[in-house]
Amino acid sequence: MAVLGVGLIGSGFMGKAHALGFLAANRVFDLPVRAELAVLADASPGAAEQAAARLGFPRATGDWRALIADPAVGIVSITTPNTLHREMALAAIAAGKHVYCEKPLAPTAAEAEEMTLAAEAAGVSTQVGFNYLKNPMVKLARDLVAAGEIGEVRSFRGVHAEDFMSDAAIPWTWRLDPSGGGGALADIGSHIVAIARFVVGPIAAVTGETATLVPRRPFDGGSRAVEVDDVATAALRFATGAVGTIEANWLATGRKMGLAFEVSGSEGAIRFTQERMNELALYRTRDPASLQGFRTIEAGPAHPPYGAFCPAAGHGLGFNDLKTIEVADFLRAIGGEAVGHADFREGWAVTRTVAAIYRAAREGGWVSVD
Amino acid sequence: MAVLGVGLIGSGFMGKAHALGFLAANRVFDLPVRAELAVLADASPGAAEQAAARLGFPRATGDWRALIADPAVGIVSITTPNTLHREMALAAIAAGKHVYCEKPLAPTAAEAEEMTLAAEAAGVSTQVGFNYLKNPMVKLARDLVAAGEIGEVRSFRGVHAEDFMSDAAIPWTWRLDPSGGGGALADIGSHIVAIARFVVGPIAAVTGETATLVPRRPFDGGSRAVEVDDVATAALRFATGAVGTIEANWLATGRKMGLAFEVSGSEGAIRFTQERMNELALYRTRDPASLQGFRTIEAGPAHPPYGAFCPAAGHGLGFNDLKTIEVADFLRAIGGEAVGHADFREGWAVTRTVAAIYRAAREGGWVSVD
Amino acid sequence: MAVLGVGLIGSGFMGKAHALGFLAANRVFDLPVRAELAVLADASPGAAEQAAARLGFPRATGDWRALIADPAVGIVSITTPNTLHREMALAAIAAGKHVYCEKPLAPTAAEAEEMTLAAEAAGVSTQVGFNYLKNPMVKLARDLVAAGEIGEVRSFRGVHAEDFMSDAAIPWTWRLDPSGGGGALADIGSHIVAIARFVVGPIAAVTGETATLVPRRPFDGGSRAVEVDDVATAALRFATGAVGTIEANWLATGRKMGLAFEVSGSEGAIRFTQERMNELALYRTRDPASLQGFRTIEAGPAHPPYGAFCPAAGHGLGFNDLKTIEVADFLRAIGGEAVGHADFREGWAVTRTVAAIYRAAREGGWVSVD
Amino acid sequence: MAVLGVGLIGSGFMGKAHALGFLAANRVFDLPVRAELAVLADASPGAAEQAAARLGFPRATGDWRALIADPAVGIVSITTPNTLHREMALAAIAAGKHVYCEKPLAPTAAEAEEMTLAAEAAGVSTQVGFNYLKNPMVKLARDLVAAGEIGEVRSFRGVHAEDFMSDAAIPWTWRLDPSGGGGALADIGSHIVAIARFVVGPIAAVTGETATLVPRRPFDGGSRAVEVDDVATAALRFATGAVGTIEANWLATGRKMGLAFEVSGSEGAIRFTQERMNELALYRTRDPASLQGFRTIEAGPAHPPYGAFCPAAGHGLGFNDLKTIEVADFLRAIGGEAVGHADFREGWAVTRTVAAIYRAAREGGWVSVD
Repeated sequence: MAVLGVGLIGSGFMGKAHALGFLAANRVFDLPVRAELAVLADASPGAAEQAAARLGFPRATGDWRALIADPAVGIVSITTPNTLHREMALAAIAAGKHVYCEKPLAPTAAEAEEMTLAAEAAGVSTQVGFNYLKNPMVKLARDLVAAGEIGEVRSFRGVHAEDFMSDAAIPWTWRLDPSGGGGALADIGSHIVAIARFVVGPIAAVTGETATLVPRRPFDGGSRAVEVDDVATAALRFATGAVGTIEANWLATGRKMGLAFEVSGSEGAIRFTQERMNELALYRTRDPASLQGFRTIEAGPAHPPYGAFCPAAGHGLGFNDLKTIEVADFLRAIGGEAVGHADFREGWAVTRTVAAIYRAAREGGWVSVD
Repeated sequence: MAVLGVGLIGSGFMGKAHALGFLAANRVFDLPVRAELAVLADASPGAAEQAAARLGFPRATGDWRALIADPAVGIVSITTPNTLHREMALAAIAAGKHVYCEKPLAPTAAEAEEMTLAAEAAGVSTQVGFNYLKNPMVKLARDLVAAGEIGEVRSFRGVHAEDFMSDAAIPWTWRLDPSGGGGALADIGSHIVAIARFVVGPIAAVTGETATLVPRRPFDGGSRAVEVDDVATAALRFATGAVGTIEANWLATGRKMGLAFEVSGSEGAIRFTQERMNELALYRTRDPASLQGFRTIEAGPAHPPYGAFCPAAGHGLGFNDLKTIEVADFLRAIGGEAVGHADFREGWAVTRTVAAIYRAAREGGWVSVD
Repeated sequence: MAVLGVGLIGSGFMGKAHALGFLAANRVFDLPVRAELAVLADASPGAAEQAAARLGFPRATGDWRALIADPAVGIVSITTPNTLHREMALAAIAAGKHVYCEKPLAPTAAEAEEMTLAAEAAGVSTQVGFNYLKNPMVKLARDLVAAGEIGEVRSFRGVHAEDFMSDAAIPWTWRLDPSGGGGALADIGSHIVAIARFVVGPIAAVTGETATLVPRRPFDGGSRAVEVDDVATAALRFATGAVGTIEANWLATGRKMGLAFEVSGSEGAIRFTQERMNELALYRTRDPASLQGFRTIEAGPAHPPYGAFCPAAGHGLGFNDLKTIEVADFLRAIGGEAVGHADFREGWAVTRTVAAIYRAAREGGWVSVD
Repeated sequence: MAVLGVGLIGSGFMGKAHALGFLAANRVFDLPVRAELAVLADASPGAAEQAAARLGFPRATGDWRALIADPAVGIVSITTPNTLHREMALAAIAAGKHVYCEKPLAPTAAEAEEMTLAAEAAGVSTQVGFNYLKNPMVKLARDLVAAGEIGEVRSFRGVHAEDFMSDAAIPWTWRLDPSGGGGALADIGSHIVAIARFVVGPIAAVTGETATLVPRRPFDGGSRAVEVDDVATAALRFATGAVGTIEANWLATGRKMGLAFEVSGSEGAIRFTQERMNELALYRTRDPASLQGFRTIEAGPAHPPYGAFCPAAGHGLGFNDLKTIEVADFLRAIGGEAVGHADFREGWAVTRTVAAIYRAAREGGWVSVD
């Protein structure tokens, strides 16, 4: 079996999640290629060495370009802020490496396009870290919709609500830098856009509204204006004619992982929230009238790839397991077995949708996506 | 104690609910006036007599004008389709009767205004049947917001989703008549508009999107085009600067009484759904960090006027009990103790907000309410 | 239609609930007989007159024997503490009146037997106020079990947990009087025994354990020993061979109406809690493997007699509506249409089961119920 | 840092879970010793080699005694059926190895005692795989109880209900072998016994009832009698005077991981179910009366060691993460930092409690635990 060395750029929460995912993927799944931890790069050599020792990378570097150039590296994992994604990804692609990049793919649709076209021209595999798509229950939702289990989809309501910026005393951070492409919508809203596309399909047009509700944040002994959205909402028209809404809100006090949706069809409906990630609720009008109701399906072996982790239902996958599935799908794509959904082309489509919502918010009315 | 005869126009589901409410109100509450069932009017004398016998009205008539003229009638209850509200209410007001009118108050803001001003000029008390405002847990939500328990309100998400029109085989009905003022938004969306105003406060501006997803319905052996909205969504700006969204959807398969909202503030949040009408969920950032969470408060004597029904928590109020509370509040208003929230002026404000959303949906962009 | 006057003994919470039930029953349902409020008796003439005026009884008395003797009274409602049930019921039966008695029927099985046999000999109809059996969702549970929807019943877990005695500062009350037949088990546990019998069937044998965890309560300036159970648990063997457990607990902090059960069968399972009284959860193994889950069925017109209250699902019945259904069933029994489940014979069976649990708790091991 | 080689016996679901736990533990946590995968033993050399290749063990053997004797092995992980635990554990202890053994520790209390005393005499560290104790929310429950947050504990209701044996067509398996120490109670009930002890404290006396509801299972072309319990229930008296019940049920149709408990105290209550393993519900009487309710606390960094996995709340731990925590605690115990709860002594106490329940079921009445 082909063995590919992994070069990881960044060693924060996401870097650790990538490392654990690469360690577990080949142990949990039968995959066409094997990944091995090879090099870790961080901002400084010291930080890199410390993280490498902990996470089990044999080598470390303070220079991400050296990591990309390293012949032992076949896969480059990028877990840095998204303003750095383009440069790193293009370099990795140019070096013929497969690229696993955290979301959102890039601050602008133009950058995402450039990255996508470069990767496709180079023939490398790509993966964007929309790991919530890897949840077996989200996959089940997609499969049920595709199989017509809820009839024709009519409407979708999607929300990604968290409260990590709710406290006005939280300082100004890089997430608030307008050069990153936006605020709550770009950061967490991109997840719900990705899910809307994954479960229902392409989004043809959008409206948008944004609001900045904490106007200034502590910064460097004083304060600094917040220029990006704390809350963004949009109306959607899917290519199929279905309608929908999304909301991104990082001031949603009390919501920890409120990535939730409800999709209604002519013969049923599906509800999901990542806060209860091991459950999916399904309603079917074909059930007898007195027995209709949303059933709570618990994740189990009947919902691949849950069974690779555990032969019994209800034991529960966690966030890190989603990363393991994402890595496995990526390794399958590298091995030629499938497209690694979400690849850069998908990441570009999400970025384009987000950009259209921002444009609609500035200009008013409906904006076509493309 | 003053005793007022009740004249009920209409004897369908809502008529019965009014009758039961008037029967129970003085038995459950101490009120400044007493209501007694007096006359029932329906489309035909026969139907009226049958309903009167059943519901306990001593007299019946096929002529609602006779009911209004009846000197034994001090209160007129209007439970007919909303295209008839204006004429009936104005006649009752002209006769000096107090008026209890089902929602929405009228198809257009102009009619609602005329009704409101007439009632205020005549000095009669009015009540609009937004009975969900009478739920002690919705009242608790309003009180908690007003008391600053969740800090400054930042965002509101309100939905009224039901599925009674979901089946495309359901025939065209009077609810789909454009002269009624609209579709799902006017019909059920007015409830969530009323709740948004009740809990958060006045709405200054709105956007709107509407969609008709079942384009034709069976009618008279053939089919008839649906011209009103099946799904409507809006973005809101409250007078306070808070933002929000609402959705009205009568195709929401699986949703039976999905009148739900979440209001997020700088120090907490509140969630509610009428499907679990005896619960309210509250999150407070002032709780210790490791113990923060949405608590599910069960309705009980600590939440007036629950205690008038039952001295023990958790026994559960039902839909009919909300009507009893509404009647009681109306009788208090008649007795001079309070304004009967929601009175016609409030019903007018809701109608105005609904109309603004429809206008925004036609014209695009933000529309001021007023 | 026959019209029967109602004589109500007691005007507390339960008395009011009876009065409202009698008022509503003929308005909500088509019934073979009509009930009219006639006489109210309370401990003193003054209290009786005040309550009668409020609840709408034309006459009042301080002498319950006079009420029973009153020729205008055809139905006697007994809502006093259960130590008084026997004497009142026997007097009413002797006078040929139909009797509606609150639960538990009597402190001892011997008294319940005497009451039952007297009523049956006199040919009057009887009703015991196990109103939770009247919940359409509990009826649905029973019907599903009877229809074999969950296969062969194997096990049942029933709990009635409330917290109204949880605070040790709550004074000693009549509920703690051993002459009442017991503590938490007799008082609230009788509800879950009644439900176990209603849903699964007769209980053949029991074990029992009781505990008094708040040993003394404030009383008359000092304190008084608690001699009855705060918590009681039992193992059950149903006549069918199914097994089960019940728990009665009035110290269950946080539980307001924790009357809940789960019944497991060879092909499915059912869950219910009265705290969410308008829902029933059903699991069926005959669903496709990947779609199995507990579905939450919301009460609606498909679950009689919900539709008599409201033509749309999800609007929610409340506690008082259950009393209305109970009254309606009783009036049907009086009219010869059905046995008024739960009649005195059923109330006797519940009392016998409760007594067997107490005996098992004293003696150890299994005790047959008869 | 000391590095210890791991020898894993068994490579089924549990073996894989151990391997992943050892791989992740040092990457997620700062620990005093480091574990490295060394040798894997399985029933045959071929099976062992295949599993070793997949899970990343450098060596494999078909002889577990060789594994124990291997000088590269410092830790022995035993994931075989529990009838084999004693022999393997005693051999490992005799070789001076630390032992990590799956639950239940042994079929009988005598065996568990022998294993415990041998380990303590040898001075090796031990760990029993009661991994649900490692859930941060179960730890939070224990901490809240210990801190008096719910006042004095009065009652506990614990259930471990699953449905993996519900289908009567499931064949007779080693789990049904009476020599394993029992049925549902020994197998899954030991988890809820361990939790009862962990959260509330030592259990002084028990009663017990058992039932075999699927009397025969397919076996070897015919069928074979089931001699162990499908359902077991017990009443408990804790050393503190609190009372409780437990139920173990592997026929609980629809329950996938119904390991749940509710503990009620004089000032609050706690509820938990492993089906929603990232949540804990807490009720406090010290909250204002109108705001009391069970709050749902979502697992987050405020609940150690969640934060070692993720810096943000709500992302969700999974089953495998609990194994990682268990391994980490064991490595800390080996490093001298703490006792590895649950160690063999605790596993012995659980076995003793289970045995007492079985004895009570046979003999009737209360049985002391020791």
